[in-house]
Amino acid sequence: MEAHPPPADTVPRLQYMADRFKTVRHATMVLSQPLSAEDQTVQSMPDASPTKWHLAHTTWFFETFVLRDFAPDYRPFDPDYHYLFNSYYEAEGARHPRPERGMLTRPALAEIREYRSYVDRAILALLDRNPPEPAQQRMELGLHHEQQHQELILMDIKHVLAQNPLRPAYDRRAALTPSDPPPDLDWISCQGGLVEIGDAGNGFAFDNERPRHKVYVNPFALANRPVTNGDFLSFMRDRGYQRPELWLSDGWLHIQGTGWRAPLYWVKEDGEWQEYTLGGLRPLNPDAPLCHVSYYEADAYARWVGARLPTEQEWEVAAHQSGTDGHFMDAGLFQPDARWNPNGPFFKLFGDVWEWTASAYAAYPGFRPAVGAIGEYNGKFMCNQFVLRGGSCVTPAGHIRATYRNFFPPASRWMFAGVRLARDN
Amino acid sequence: MEAHPPPADTVPRLQYMADRFKTVRHATMVLSQPLSAEDQTVQSMPDASPTKWHLAHTTWFFETFVLRDFAPDYRPFDPDYHYLFNSYYEAEGARHPRPERGMLTRPALAEIREYRSYVDRAILALLDRNPPEPAQQRMELGLHHEQQHQELILMDIKHVLAQNPLRPAYDRRAALTPSDPPPDLDWISCQGGLVEIGDAGNGFAFDNERPRHKVYVNPFALANRPVTNGDFLSFMRDRGYQRPELWLSDGWLHIQGTGWRAPLYWVKEDGEWQEYTLGGLRPLNPDAPLCHVSYYEADAYARWVGARLPTEQEWEVAAHQSGTDGHFMDAGLFQPDARWNPNGPFFKLFGDVWEWTASAYAAYPGFRPAVGAIGEYNGKFMCNQFVLRGGSCVTPAGHIRATYRNFFPPASRWMFAGVRLARDN
Amino acid sequence: MEAHPPPADTVPRLQYMADRFKTVRHATMVLSQPLSAEDQTVQSMPDASPTKWHLAHTTWFFETFVLRDFAPDYRPFDPDYHYLFNSYYEAEGARHPRPERGMLTRPALAEIREYRSYVDRAILALLDRNPPEPAQQRMELGLHHEQQHQELILMDIKHVLAQNPLRPAYDRRAALTPSDPPPDLDWISCQGGLVEIGDAGNGFAFDNERPRHKVYVNPFALANRPVTNGDFLSFMRDRGYQRPELWLSDGWLHIQGTGWRAPLYWVKEDGEWQEYTLGGLRPLNPDAPLCHVSYYEADAYARWVGARLPTEQEWEVAAHQSGTDGHFMDAGLFQPDARWNPNGPFFKLFGDVWEWTASAYAAYPGFRPAVGAIGEYNGKFMCNQFVLRGGSCVTPAGHIRATYRNFFPPASRWMFAGVRLARDN
Amino acid sequence: MEAHPPPADTVPRLQYMADRFKTVRHATMVLSQPLSAEDQTVQSMPDASPTKWHLAHTTWFFETFVLRDFAPDYRPFDPDYHYLFNSYYEAEGARHPRPERGMLTRPALAEIREYRSYVDRAILALLDRNPPEPAQQRMELGLHHEQQHQELILMDIKHVLAQNPLRPAYDRRAALTPSDPPPDLDWISCQGGLVEIGDAGNGFAFDNERPRHKVYVNPFALANRPVTNGDFLSFMRDRGYQRPELWLSDGWLHIQGTGWRAPLYWVKEDGEWQEYTLGGLRPLNPDAPLCHVSYYEADAYARWVGARLPTEQEWEVAAHQSGTDGHFMDAGLFQPDARWNPNGPFFKLFGDVWEWTASAYAAYPGFRPAVGAIGEYNGKFMCNQFVLRGGSCVTPAGHIRATYRNFFPPASRWMFAGVRLARDN
Repeated sequence: MEAHPPPADTVPRLQYMADRFKTVRHATMVLSQPLSAEDQTVQSMPDASPTKWHLAHTTWFFETFVLRDFAPDYRPFDPDYHYLFNSYYEAEGARHPRPERGMLTRPALAEIREYRSYVDRAILALLDRNPPEPAQQRMELGLHHEQQHQELILMDIKHVLAQNPLRPAYDRRAALTPSDPPPDLDWISCQGGLVEIGDAGNGFAFDNERPRHKVYVNPFALANRPVTNGDFLSFMRDRGYQRPELWLSDGWLHIQGTGWRAPLYWVKEDGEWQEYTLGGLRPLNPDAPLCHVSYYEADAYARWVGARLPTEQEWEVAAHQSGTDGHFMDAGLFQPDARWNPNGPFFKLFGDVWEWTASAYAAYPGFRPAVGAIGEYNGKFMCNQFVLRGGSCVTPAGHIRATYRNFFPPASRWMFAGVRLARDN
Repeated sequence: MEAHPPPADTVPRLQYMADRFKTVRHATMVLSQPLSAEDQTVQSMPDASPTKWHLAHTTWFFETFVLRDFAPDYRPFDPDYHYLFNSYYEAEGARHPRPERGMLTRPALAEIREYRSYVDRAILALLDRNPPEPAQQRMELGLHHEQQHQELILMDIKHVLAQNPLRPAYDRRAALTPSDPPPDLDWISCQGGLVEIGDAGNGFAFDNERPRHKVYVNPFALANRPVTNGDFLSFMRDRGYQRPELWLSDGWLHIQGTGWRAPLYWVKEDGEWQEYTLGGLRPLNPDAPLCHVSYYEADAYARWVGARLPTEQEWEVAAHQSGTDGHFMDAGLFQPDARWNPNGPFFKLFGDVWEWTASAYAAYPGFRPAVGAIGEYNGKFMCNQFVLRGGSCVTPAGHIRATYRNFFPPASRWMFAGVRLARDN
Repeated sequence: MEAHPPPADTVPRLQYMADRFKTVRHATMVLSQPLSAEDQTVQSMPDASPTKWHLAHTTWFFETFVLRDFAPDYRPFDPDYHYLFNSYYEAEGARHPRPERGMLTRPALAEIREYRSYVDRAILALLDRNPPEPAQQRMELGLHHEQQHQELILMDIKHVLAQNPLRPAYDRRAALTPSDPPPDLDWISCQGGLVEIGDAGNGFAFDNERPRHKVYVNPFALANRPVTNGDFLSFMRDRGYQRPELWLSDGWLHIQGTGWRAPLYWVKEDGEWQEYTLGGLRPLNPDAPLCHVSYYEADAYARWVGARLPTEQEWEVAAHQSGTDGHFMDAGLFQPDARWNPNGPFFKLFGDVWEWTASAYAAYPGFRPAVGAIGEYNGKFMCNQFVLRGGSCVTPAGHIRATYRNFFPPASRWMFAGVRLARDN
Repeated sequence: MEAHPPPADTVPRLQYMADRFKTVRHATMVLSQPLSAEDQTVQSMPDASPTKWHLAHTTWFFETFVLRDFAPDYRPFDPDYHYLFNSYYEAEGARHPRPERGMLTRPALAEIREYRSYVDRAILALLDRNPPEPAQQRMELGLHHEQQHQELILMDIKHVLAQNPLRPAYDRRAALTPSDPPPDLDWISCQGGLVEIGDAGNGFAFDNERPRHKVYVNPFALANRPVTNGDFLSFMRDRGYQRPELWLSDGWLHIQGTGWRAPLYWVKEDGEWQEYTLGGLRPLNPDAPLCHVSYYEADAYARWVGARLPTEQEWEVAAHQSGTDGHFMDAGLFQPDARWNPNGPFFKLFGDVWEWTASAYAAYPGFRPAVGAIGEYNGKFMCNQFVLRGGSCVTPAGHIRATYRNFFPPASRWMFAGVRLARDN
């Protein structure tokens, strides 16, 4: 899916929107194709939702924020769905509790598919009638929202399938990838100074990327490539998980409580490290980017190596030296690969793995959330989370940009998150 | 399903066993018929297992304890199943953790059905070859085990579906039943004295019903009928859930912690009590037997009314004045009904609801569990559980008998358990 | 403190009561003597109360159940104490939550001592005025209650001090005791039959020991001596804690969750087992009775050795062959000793360690709790507990009798509980 | 205690250090004076330590980081104390677990007092011998550390005493204070721009205040005074605690889980709000600064009023318009007061209550923690905490400065924390 700018004229623009709508919605269904109804129903932890729920919730989003507000003659597919498939929008009233999404054996997957078709038809019909600009903006938001849930579908089903002692594959072809030795670690210097950060207004952006604002950045250097599995194995061999001086206080407590001794999905069998992937269990490739680590592990690794994590401002400044090309969901591998092609001075700055930054997720100066339920999209999560940048191998191509801010609590590991080092210059 | 005694001759006896095997195994599949693959996969609490798991585990039981030990040429359907579908037999080695049974989206329901057919064919083939007596005894045990899981399938799926805010029915025809006013409460006197309790050896019994032994029982009286919903509503109106003097200390703590203010599955909507049944939400029938109460509630109700629960010895003594006829699973209602037909001096002593006794589940004097894994069937649960007697509307007809001992922890409510009062005479 | 029968005449009987009152109340203060105000304030777990709280609660018992009801001119020492020092009597209204007893830095120990003196004077003044029979019965109950709390003071402070990495002694002289090799294990046969159990009405007994009633007991044999530390070390060396087939299902779960691998207070230092005692850390004496095990461990040990625990009826039948002499609190050792003097056919049937029975704590047939708050003394705990018999080295001499029923949940270990084996004959 | 700059010459400087040492150490003992040994022993939550522990730990700090490293002939008071009184310095080895500090009934308070005297003498003796500069720096750090623990002693004992239903006073004279109506809320504009933040090197500062660095700050305005109790009552009356749209997602979850409906220590009795203070329960003064609120409540209040919390950079920029005078611990009130005297354009920017900022606690650009155990002082807590500024009524006078960064997790409320509003300009 390419990110061509939309045409300026109204009619072709609406056509363009309709095409994109069909493409994005279809891509979601394609992701659910390898999964049985059973696979799509189960919830493996409160943070992760069933595939079926994602299919319904993204549809609910269009129904609630587009059709309800801009299609006066629209009749909801099922009035109960408003309760069942609201995620976290308090302004939309009571909702089914998040940890119980896996209890919804009904409505059946077949009904959810009908629900999608029903809403798709209504949206396309609305587009035919030249809806007002705000309706189009909501559709735009709905498509970006849908893409975020495409990534979540893959993250969440990986977690479900990994609980199964049979270690079943989502898709046997996933994670089969050529591999090159990684380039030597190198430091790319950036001068810093008084710079501008945040969305410049040239296309779609979430509210949390705005407003563009000035920040002062000290000179720094960013690693040319992400940390690899091999790098992290050295940390482990050096007893990194056993040395408290390498860890944040919270992180040390956390690894004592959980017993973590390796990244998520790493499994030692017969003395060899394996990695559970969406293609099943595979031998760990030391040359591939490290993935599925928490902020705690990212930070501890950086301290061990005598470096640090970049701030999100540093990352964004550096990213302007690079295009946004990379290895994304559309490649169908769903696992960071070990092909090392430079993109500007950097390798894999975009794609493969989200990169933890040292920046707590917070409002930009002058941040104003949207009015109403849509205002809950981002702002209310600005507490105890850290920003990640750059997208991953399960992020839809075209969804990412240099100003994009992803965010997770420091103990989360089920997203495809890795590490790029920084240091003062 | 009638409980005719098996024929004495070998060949017809084997034929009889084969017929029963087919009948019982088929009955399990019939129970799963109204359920989608999604319904059959989800686990709603650690105590309750997915339908799919029950289908597989009962099959595993025959595979492990009959085929593995008595059919030397038998090849397991899938070696992984030995790990996946062991319930709690430590002697059979490591097993999938109970609280994670709901993570098994694979193997698919279709594969489990194949597994059942595969094992069924192997068992029937074995029966053709006139297997030794111990093999036949294991098959007998396997059938009684399967019947217990039929009841569990209904208990567990009721719990799953009840979590769904749509309150879907398992079967729309369930719980539709004629209703009579209950008979007045009356007390049936029993003389007691030195009596014998336990299995007399005339047919199948579980090891926990043996050996038959002498007990001394004081004169007592047993209520002619179980407590009704209407009776319990009086307790609730008299603030029964708010008065600590009515409760065991553990029970009082438990209802403070859980906030219980009514039996499980009771729902107040618009000021009227409804009851979730396997037929969906239904108005509460005050004339029907009380169901889905814990030992704590049973005991508190008895204290409130100035009576007590019977001991299991008292219950068993009284039961010999009555046949074992009653309202069981085979009626297809899956809910206690309000038809009041006497059976000897009692109403509904068998069927409708399990009756809590005041007896902690313990070994009978001289109890010897079977050797090996089968010995884990009953004995290792003799701690912090209470005995229930008489079977329920989800117990297969013919499965129950006067000496049958069911057992649950005092806080459990998802089984179909009610109350029959006793008092000293 | 001997248990002479009280005189028959009123005046000497009141004098006798006054003397006993002074003796028992003084004994409590003597127990608190080695402890600082700091020691007496802290609570180490919800089950265990601070010494200071015990001093106050036993006083509250006399104030509430004797003085309030029988001394009309009595003025409470402090009205707040009614709330602070109620233990579990719901009928006495709201009370300070049990897990927060250790928050009561105020009232100070000095005030609690004054409280005791104040109430002591009021009780003795009441005795001077020849109070009615019910008042005397309440005093009698109060003294037995006080003796129970003497044992609790020692159990609870042992738990507090054991949390301290300095392993301080309560009293350096405690647990210093001569030691003999234990007698060989022998089995004492008892014929059983239809026997009577429970209090015969010759002296004080708690309501849970009544009414005396008939039970039928099969022939059995009871071990001549309790299990020793050495016996239990053999179980441990035979991997007793690692073998699921030896454990109740609940017990196995519990030891997985807690990581128990030895009795409470056992500490391995430099490869040698030590035991924390009220005299500090001491080398484990293999010849002394095993102490501080849960029901789970007692039951698993019995299964390992091919025996079982006695029922409480068996224990009581056997106990009538023996006097109640033994090693009690008054010896000042506060630790089971290894002097083996026979008492009838048994060693140490009374004293040293409470002996777990296989009997769940339940009402005797015809049990009637007292009316009012006093009725909460025993009956409301008849759930998920097991009966222990015979008293221990921290039970006051004269407090125990053959019909005495102590009770604890199966996972409790901080009381001085051990094991005597039984088997069928 | 004034914060005069130390003299430049060595001998008077050492004399000055010795005087300060005596003064600060004495002030700690004065704080513990109103407390019994019982009061000083108990721990009311894992976050709060017993007074006795604070007395010992601050002494351990001097023993470990000054005497051990710079007084070669020093012999530790008790080798066990190194384990018992280490707080969180992993590099110093194993330590007593934080949640079990309240189990230490031994060593007795009297021993801890001896420990303090012993170490005090050794430090003063060392000062007589003209110790090297690094030793003097460690002493300086030790004194600032001791002052931090003075504040903690008051915070922690308030929490202990508040658990007591008697609501005892720490000091009856505390919290007795004149009161004026607060000034109208006014907004003080600050121009912002490229400014410098952090310690300029003119005196003692913690490592987390360094290095001084450039930041770009947008124009903003800061409220002239903190939010008052009366202001917050309006929020509560407007159902602030019931409206999810006002809360961060984490905050809303937290108040659902805890049931918070008012600031910590607020108690409604007979329809009137009271506040537990170190002087006991007092009527809530609407004119006094709001205190004991979490970040969640601070943030929700700001959103309700249409403002926001300041960043720590904004706060620090504004603070340079004001002196550091204010109401601190030395006034002996230990409660925010309602006397409103301006200090520059602001009221109470320093003292009374710590002011929550919107800034997550993070390293300044170029931050380097000290080498060794001392490096654990601040850096390892830079995760999931927010910065508070300005000191409080329990902060020692002279301890605070404009660059001082305090930090707590967003759910903490037992420190004396309040709110000052900010807005964009």
